[in-house]
Amino acid sequence: MSVHEDRLARLQALLAERGFLGLVVTDLLNVRYLTGFTGSNAMMLVPVRGEPTFLTDGRYQDQAREQVWIERHIITRDFSGEVEKLGTDSWAVETHALSVDEWRTMGERPSAGKLIEELRLIKDEVEITGLTQACEISARALERLWTEPLLGRTERDIALRLEIIMRELGADDRAFDTIVAVGPNSAIPHHDPTLRAVEDGDFLKIDFGALVEGYRADCTRTVVVGRAAEWQREIHAAVREAQAAGVAALIPGTPLAEIDALVRENLAESGWLDAFTTGLGHGVGLLIHEDPFFAASAVGRIERRMVLTMEPGIYLAGRGGVRIEDTVLVEQTGPVVLTNLTTELMEIS
Amino acid sequence: MSVHEDRLARLQALLAERGFLGLVVTDLLNVRYLTGFTGSNAMMLVPVRGEPTFLTDGRYQDQAREQVWIERHIITRDFSGEVEKLGTDSWAVETHALSVDEWRTMGERPSAGKLIEELRLIKDEVEITGLTQACEISARALERLWTEPLLGRTERDIALRLEIIMRELGADDRAFDTIVAVGPNSAIPHHDPTLRAVEDGDFLKIDFGALVEGYRADCTRTVVVGRAAEWQREIHAAVREAQAAGVAALIPGTPLAEIDALVRENLAESGWLDAFTTGLGHGVGLLIHEDPFFAASAVGRIERRMVLTMEPGIYLAGRGGVRIEDTVLVEQTGPVVLTNLTTELMEIS
Repeated sequence: MSVHEDRLARLQALLAERGFLGLVVTDLLNVRYLTGFTGSNAMMLVPVRGEPTFLTDGRYQDQAREQVWIERHIITRDFSGEVEKLGTDSWAVETHALSVDEWRTMGERPSAGKLIEELRLIKDEVEITGLTQACEISARALERLWTEPLLGRTERDIALRLEIIMRELGADDRAFDTIVAVGPNSAIPHHDPTLRAVEDGDFLKIDFGALVEGYRADCTRTVVVGRAAEWQREIHAAVREAQAAGVAALIPGTPLAEIDALVRENLAESGWLDAFTTGLGHGVGLLIHEDPFFAASAVGRIERRMVLTMEPGIYLAGRGGVRIEDTVLVEQTGPVVLTNLTTELMEIS
Repeated sequence: MSVHEDRLARLQALLAERGFLGLVVTDLLNVRYLTGFTGSNAMMLVPVRGEPTFLTDGRYQDQAREQVWIERHIITRDFSGEVEKLGTDSWAVETHALSVDEWRTMGERPSAGKLIEELRLIKDEVEITGLTQACEISARALERLWTEPLLGRTERDIALRLEIIMRELGADDRAFDTIVAVGPNSAIPHHDPTLRAVEDGDFLKIDFGALVEGYRADCTRTVVVGRAAEWQREIHAAVREAQAAGVAALIPGTPLAEIDALVRENLAESGWLDAFTTGLGHGVGLLIHEDPFFAASAVGRIERRMVLTMEPGIYLAGRGGVRIEDTVLVEQTGPVVLTNLTTELMEIS
């Protein structure tokens, strides 16, 4: 059984369990998950039992035949019209990913909930291979960047250079828009690279990742260009300790909310909790931010073969900030850090 | 009045005209259009008269204060909760851009239709400046690429090189994933670059564009690496003639469907209509594909200050294909091609 057939079988089991006759899959990443299709327009009809149907338009007819294992293809620009014809009136839809207008065109069908996203929480072998490769390329790319002189280069220039290195190392693309933030800009959690150049003594915070076969790495390191000042050492050490505690807690069975509390307590003890203004981490896979998300209110537990980020930070407006982030695979025995890079404070040139 | 205030005033006039008390703006590009905000999470409440409210979360608090001219900001992660508090029950929402689940959380409000998209059909001065710069950088980048030896280089390598040149020339980023298709791959309208290398006599089709201040260029040229064969000259000439006819027809007042028919007739006369399997063109702005779209069934006419692509093609499966595409600004006097590059068949090395 191929990986896509296996995913379909698990979806059909879930449909049976929840009492649905079928699912109209409109979310493009969910279609990709079930088929491998990488085009920009497609839909799937998945009955609770039996063969699914794949829909795309004329631009992707050949590509679909090459990529998609499903036998039955419909080539059309009018998905809704086809769906009506097929007598799937009682089938459920992805109301979290379907616009109100599309939903109305399809006859206001019942909600399936996030069924495929539920499957996507736990990564299979193929997904873990993609994620591991993406993280491996990311880590090697950053190590190579550190060997280049960075003083005087702009945030934009450094972002572009890192993306080029990742592509040279085999990445299909960047996984998301690279964040490069120097000096006081490092205090901004999500910062678009500017023409600000690296000055001596600056924090240099880089949040980046490679894309491989649709799977995304997510990694942040913060270094000092030149010699680190005492305050820089202090906040870096505090983040490093909190991050290590968070990673170590990624054990199957542990509630997400408990890990969130644990890292926040760690930062409270070092006196920096107020300066931690973002979320602690999230699932990563075909999407850069996907379920589950860490939060005090998060329901659910860490499970084997989840892949998540752990990314506490300290952000001091006007001065600078530190974030350390890894992408971590949860194995039965505990966490495996996929973005394998030192978290020690580096002073680079 | 700033450009954003002017856009808001036009939206409020439209709300009054259509009888809405207010609009809950959830589409992020529409929020950007009204405010300039570039973060990844925001919402706006626009009453038919008076001051709007801007909502974002803590990550973007400072960025919002810098970018957004609106006085009243609410910093929260619970947009729906805030909207309920504010007594905007009868306000309309963007049902084309809102998921069913989000819509239900907001109390199943009435649909506004695509109001802001209606404004975005006609570009203002700031938008035309952004589009012009994006197209200018794109054209100069391709000219520079043509001066480099391309024989033997892979599709992926050429795509990356073109993106680097665009960034060096001042682009913020690529406008969309670059298509580079050589040899038989050029027959695939939308082709992801592979490790296929350019061979002597290949078609080389490049569909690309620069991103500047959120605005996108969209341009395609097809050249021959080496000497062009007779069949290559023939289909290139046919596409070139059809494309020129389409561009020349971009006159205010002309129905979109009429232009679609005109170009198709042109391709029918040269005997190649069956090999033209994609859409003829589309609006371009903050989105790479936005209203209006050319089609036989298209309603509406060309208007002054629309910016559209014109992109007929001939695709011969297994052999090769040609597309020529320009981004064109419609002025009162007629079309102004923004992607200013020769459409003659080039033989490059």
